[in-house]
Amino acid sequence: MSTVHITFLPDAVELDAARGESLLQAALDAGVYIDAACGGTGSCGRCRLILREGEIESDDLSTLSVEQRESGVILACQCRATGSVVVQLVEAARVEGSMLGEGEALSTRKLRSIQDLEVESGRWRFDPPVDKLALHLDPPSLQDNTSDLSRLYRAIRQQHAYHHVTADSAILPTLSQRLREGDWNVTATVADARLEWQMVCSQDSERRSARVVRVEPGDTTREHVVLAVDIGTTTVWAQLLDLERREVLATASDYNAQISFGEDVVTRILASNKEGGLSRLQSAVVQTINGLIERLLLQTDLSRADILQVTAAGNTIMTHLVLGIPPRTVREAPYVPTMTFAPPVRALDIGLKLPEHVFLYTIPSVAGFMGGDIVAGVIAAGFHRDPEVTLYIDLGTNGEIVLGNEDWLVSASCSAGPAFEGGGIRCGVRAMPGAVVEFRIDPDTYRHMIVTMGQKQPIGVCGVGLIGMIAEMYNKGVLEPNGRFRTDLPTKRIRPRAGEYEYVVVDAANSGTGADIVLTEADIENILRAKAAIYAGVMTLLESVNLAVDDISRVIISGGLGNFLELENSIQIGLFPDLPRERFRYVGNGSLIGARLVTMSREMLESAEQVAHRITNVELMENRMFMDHYASAKFIPHTDQRRFPSVRRWSSQSAPRLEMTG
Amino acid sequence: MSTVHITFLPDAVELDAARGESLLQAALDAGVYIDAACGGTGSCGRCRLILREGEIESDDLSTLSVEQRESGVILACQCRATGSVVVQLVEAARVEGSMLGEGEALSTRKLRSIQDLEVESGRWRFDPPVDKLALHLDPPSLQDNTSDLSRLYRAIRQQHAYHHVTADSAILPTLSQRLREGDWNVTATVADARLEWQMVCSQDSERRSARVVRVEPGDTTREHVVLAVDIGTTTVWAQLLDLERREVLATASDYNAQISFGEDVVTRILASNKEGGLSRLQSAVVQTINGLIERLLLQTDLSRADILQVTAAGNTIMTHLVLGIPPRTVREAPYVPTMTFAPPVRALDIGLKLPEHVFLYTIPSVAGFMGGDIVAGVIAAGFHRDPEVTLYIDLGTNGEIVLGNEDWLVSASCSAGPAFEGGGIRCGVRAMPGAVVEFRIDPDTYRHMIVTMGQKQPIGVCGVGLIGMIAEMYNKGVLEPNGRFRTDLPTKRIRPRAGEYEYVVVDAANSGTGADIVLTEADIENILRAKAAIYAGVMTLLESVNLAVDDISRVIISGGLGNFLELENSIQIGLFPDLPRERFRYVGNGSLIGARLVTMSREMLESAEQVAHRITNVELMENRMFMDHYASAKFIPHTDQRRFPSVRRWSSQSAPRLEMTG
Repeated sequence: MSTVHITFLPDAVELDAARGESLLQAALDAGVYIDAACGGTGSCGRCRLILREGEIESDDLSTLSVEQRESGVILACQCRATGSVVVQLVEAARVEGSMLGEGEALSTRKLRSIQDLEVESGRWRFDPPVDKLALHLDPPSLQDNTSDLSRLYRAIRQQHAYHHVTADSAILPTLSQRLREGDWNVTATVADARLEWQMVCSQDSERRSARVVRVEPGDTTREHVVLAVDIGTTTVWAQLLDLERREVLATASDYNAQISFGEDVVTRILASNKEGGLSRLQSAVVQTINGLIERLLLQTDLSRADILQVTAAGNTIMTHLVLGIPPRTVREAPYVPTMTFAPPVRALDIGLKLPEHVFLYTIPSVAGFMGGDIVAGVIAAGFHRDPEVTLYIDLGTNGEIVLGNEDWLVSASCSAGPAFEGGGIRCGVRAMPGAVVEFRIDPDTYRHMIVTMGQKQPIGVCGVGLIGMIAEMYNKGVLEPNGRFRTDLPTKRIRPRAGEYEYVVVDAANSGTGADIVLTEADIENILRAKAAIYAGVMTLLESVNLAVDDISRVIISGGLGNFLELENSIQIGLFPDLPRERFRYVGNGSLIGARLVTMSREMLESAEQVAHRITNVELMENRMFMDHYASAKFIPHTDQRRFPSVRRWSSQSAPRLEMTG
Repeated sequence: MSTVHITFLPDAVELDAARGESLLQAALDAGVYIDAACGGTGSCGRCRLILREGEIESDDLSTLSVEQRESGVILACQCRATGSVVVQLVEAARVEGSMLGEGEALSTRKLRSIQDLEVESGRWRFDPPVDKLALHLDPPSLQDNTSDLSRLYRAIRQQHAYHHVTADSAILPTLSQRLREGDWNVTATVADARLEWQMVCSQDSERRSARVVRVEPGDTTREHVVLAVDIGTTTVWAQLLDLERREVLATASDYNAQISFGEDVVTRILASNKEGGLSRLQSAVVQTINGLIERLLLQTDLSRADILQVTAAGNTIMTHLVLGIPPRTVREAPYVPTMTFAPPVRALDIGLKLPEHVFLYTIPSVAGFMGGDIVAGVIAAGFHRDPEVTLYIDLGTNGEIVLGNEDWLVSASCSAGPAFEGGGIRCGVRAMPGAVVEFRIDPDTYRHMIVTMGQKQPIGVCGVGLIGMIAEMYNKGVLEPNGRFRTDLPTKRIRPRAGEYEYVVVDAANSGTGADIVLTEADIENILRAKAAIYAGVMTLLESVNLAVDDISRVIISGGLGNFLELENSIQIGLFPDLPRERFRYVGNGSLIGARLVTMSREMLESAEQVAHRITNVELMENRMFMDHYASAKFIPHTDQRRFPSVRRWSSQSAPRLEMTG
C-alpha cells in the first residue's frame, strides 16, 4: 500500500498516511485535533484546512464559499492527498491541546490483521474432504461384466487409494448413462466418510472411506467450487471458493432474516418454542443463505450445479435452527443442546436451492453456548497445535473465549450481551454507515471530534465507537472509573436526564436521526458489564488452569467488531488484559475462515472435530469464581488498577477516588 | 397332521390320507384311477364311489339323484373321510388297470419341503442388522452437559459394544423431546453400517458401527416388526415378521402390477426404456408392495409406525425398477447392470407408504440375470457353507441355477422362458384355481383323469400340470421321445390341427373357459426347450468345475412351482438330473426366506454379501458347451437315455425308436 507524507501546521505534526485516506482520518491518526461535528460528511463545514503545498483530490466542497475555495481552504473530511502535502489548521477548526499524550502517532493502534492465515499457517495439506476424482474405468466385456457401480468403486479404490466406498443412492438412476457418455472417463465427487462418521479413520488414517455423491462424464476436476458459510446471529456471510485455483471467487453478506424474531440467541430460542416458530426461523435463515447464493452466482457467472458442497459454521443455536432442530433445551440449566456433531444433510432437504448432490456439513459445536463458529475460529487461528498458550476472544453477541494450546483447551461463553453490537444502548447502532466510530475530546476545552463509518451523517454509536468514547472520556477525566460522568466540567454536553447524566455526542441539528445522539450512564454501565463479563471469563479460565495473565503468549481477536477495534481503547476500558500490544492479533471472521479451511483440507476437518471434542467448556452461569471477577471488573479499567499498569490517566492528580459499588 | 385310513374296493388298495383331503386326491395318491373329467368341481358327476363303511363329510352332491344318494353313492371329489372308510369304485367310474406300476403309493412323491430352514440350519445367531437397543442415559447435569446426541452415542457404545455411531439426521428434530419423555430411558433403532458400507467390518467384526434411525421413549424392544419382501417378476410376496417372538405374523402376495407392461424381464426392460416408462414401472411395483403392506397391517392390527425396516429380494431387473434405476444396459451384451449392491434407501423416497425411519435394503445381486432373489435362496438353503456340493435350481421365469459349496459357487441363468409358468402355452395358465395340476391316463383305454387346483372348473394347464402330463403321456406311450403324439392310438383325444397334433385335455362342455382345453405339440416343444435349458445349464456348470452329475450331493428346488412339483415327473421329462430321490429338497420361496434371514441375522447379511461376491456367473448366451447340451436335452428325457437309467417306460416292447431331430 503506497503512502503519502502529510504535514499538519502550525505544530508540524508529520505522518505517512495511506494514499486515499481522508485528511480527517490522517489527522486522527496523527493525533491532530480538528473540529468535526458531522462525522465527516462534509455538511458542517468545520474541519477546514488551508492547503500550503502539494496536490489533493476532493469530493464535496459545496459548504465552502467561492472565496474560501480560492484562498486554498479545503475540508479535511472531503480531501485526500495525492502526494506529499503541507496543510494548516485554520483557527476555528483547531482544537487546543491537539497532541495526544506525547504526540505518539496512533496509526499502528489498529489490531494487526491475520488475513492470510491459510497461507501463513502453511501447516495443512490441500486435501478436500469433498473431493473430485478423475477416473478411467475399464469398459465392460463378457469376461468382466461387473456392474457399473462396482466398476466405479473398483476404479476409485485402485486409482485413488480409498479403502471403502459407498454411494448416495441418488447417483444410481443416471450412473449408467454418465459412464457411457464419458466413454468410461468420469469424474466422481466423493465425500469423506469422516463427515458422517466422526473419527472413523482416526486410528488408521491411510484407510480412507468415501461416499460417491455425484458422477459426471469426462474430467471436470478443474471445476471445483464449494461454498463456505458463517451463520451469525446477526449477519450471515457466504463465500464461493474455487478449490482448484485455491481462491475466493466472491463474498457476500446479509443480515440474518431471523433478526425479526429477536436480536440474540435467547430470544430466537423463545421464538422457536412457539407454535410453528421453529420452521419459520429455519425458513428465515435458509432464505438468507439462498439470497446470498443467488448474489454469489450472479457475481461469478456460475450456476447452482457448479457448487459441490456447503460447509457452514455457526453458533450452536444457529446450527440447530438451520437444520430445523429445536434449541429449546439450551436455554435452561444444564444448557444441553440436541447435538454438537450433526451428520451432513442434503442441502435441498432443508430448503437450500442447490442440486441433489450438495450436502451441508456443519462445523461441530462444543456446548449449547460454544458453537461451531468458535471451533472454526480456533482452527483458523491454529493454536490448537501450538505449544504456546493463546487466548482467543470472539466479540459477538455472546463473547466466547477459548484459552489453550496443543495440549489443552478450555472455553467459556461470557453472556456479554449485545452491547458491543450496539444492542441495549440508547443510541446504539450496528457497525454501519453513519455509526460513530472515532471520538476525540480536547481535555482543555472539552470540545470533541467524531468520525462516522463511511463518513455519513451520524445516526448513532456502534460498539467500537462506544469503546472509543469510554476510553477517551476516561482518559481525559470526563468519566469516573465507575462509569459516572463528572458533572463539574465546563461543558454543556454533559446534562442530567431522568435521574442520571448523559453526554450529547451529536446534537439534533447535525444528526441523521433528527434527534440528539447521546451516551447515557446506563449505556456506559451496559458496556462495562459486557467488558467485565469478557474479562472475568478470561480470568476464570486462567485460574481454572492455574495460569496468570502474563502466561498468555498471544491474544487473537475475532468477530466483525475486531475489524475496527482500537486495541489501546479496548485495554484502556479493561476489556482485554493489559499485555504487551504485539501479542495481539486480529483474525477477522474466524468462523468463515475456519469453514473455508475445512472445505479445503481433510486435516482441518479432523482438527475441527478434535477441537470440538478437546475443548472443556466451563459454565460461567453459576460459577462463583466468575462472579467475583465480574464484580471487580465493572470499573474502568478495573477495581484493581495494578492489573492495568499501562493504562494512563490524563492527570493522576485529578484522578477521582475509587468508589466501590454493588 | 392327523390321517384317516381309506380302503378302495374292489382292489383293496389302502392308504393313510391326510384328514380333510378329498377322496379324489386320496385315490390319486393311492394310484387308483377314477374317471374325473371336470377337474374335481363336482359338475361332471363321474367320479362316483359307494360308501361301504365309515363316515364322510361332503360338499356339493347335487349332480347325484336322490336315489343314488340313498343307495350310498358319493362323488370322490366332493367328499372327505372323517374316520376310516371303505369305498368302492362304481363301474362307470373305474378306470381299468387302476394300479400304477407295481401299485406303489405315490403319496411321498412330492418334494420334501424344507419349511423351517431357519430352525433347521441352526447355524446362525439371532442378531438383526437393524436392531433395537434399550438404553439408559445418565441425565445431564452441569458437570456433564454433553449434547443429547453425544449422550445417546455414548450409551450405545458403552451399553451395546458399538464402536462407531452416527445418526440419520431425521431423528434430530424430535431427539431432545423423546429422551426427556422417556426420562432418559429410550430405545434406539440402529442400522448396522454394513448395510451401507459392505464389508466395512469384515476384518474386525468386533468393531461394529451403526446409524441411529429412530429413537423412542421407554423400552420398546418387545415390539420389533420388520417386513421381508420377495419382488418376483410375476408375484410379489410380503411377510410381516415379529423378530422379538421370532415368528411370521402374516404373509400376503399379489401379482406384480408391472405385469401389464409385459410378462418377463426383457419386456419390462423394453417398457422402462420408453418415455416415462421407468417411473410407471417403479410406481406399479411400489403400489403392489403398498397394497400388500395395507393387507398385512389389517391382518395383524399393527400400524405403519410399527414397521422398523424392509428387506427385499428380487432379480436384478426388479431391484433396479423398484429403486427407479433404468435396467437398460442389462439387455444387451455384456449384460451389465447399473448396480449389484445398492445402498439402502429411505422407503418413502421411492414411494412406499412407510414412516421416515424405515429404510429399504435390497439383497445384493450377482449379475444382470443373477439377482438378489437367488443370493437369498442360496443363504436360505445354506450350502454356501457346506462342504458337500449342492445344486440349487430356481424354477421361475428364467430358471437360475447355482452349483457349489463352501469353497466355490458358480451360477447360470438359463433363459428357460415362461413355459413353466404357463407362458407361451396355448391353454397355459399360472398355478391358480382351475389349473390342471394332476393327470393320469389309463394305458389300456386311454381314458384319463385330471385334478385342478382348488378343484375348480378347469380353465387351463399350469406348469406342474404340463410337466405331469408330458411325463404321464411319455410313460404310457402316448408321446414319442421327441415330443410328438403317437397318432395310431385308439383315442379321439389326439387330433390333428393346423399341421400338428393336439391332445384334448378337457372338452368345451366341461371347461371353465367354454372352449376345449388342449395340449399342442408346440406347447410340448416349449416345455422341452425350457427343461432342456435348465438341464443344459446344470451340465455346463458341472463341466465348468470338472464334476459329474453324481458328484451332486443335494439338489434344492426353489420357486412357487416347486410347491406342487412331482419329483418323479420332473426327472422323467429330463428337467432334473436322474439322481437318487432322497438327494432332492424343496426350499419353497427361497428368495423370501433369504430376505427373512437377513432381517434376523447380521451373519446372514454378511453371508448374502459374500455369496453375491463369491458366485462366478457363467454367461450361457454365447456358450458353445451350453448349446451342445441344450440340443441333446430337447428330448424326453434326453437323446442319451443312459443319462436317465431310472426312467421307466410303460412297456419296453412298445417303446418307439428314438428319432434324432434338429
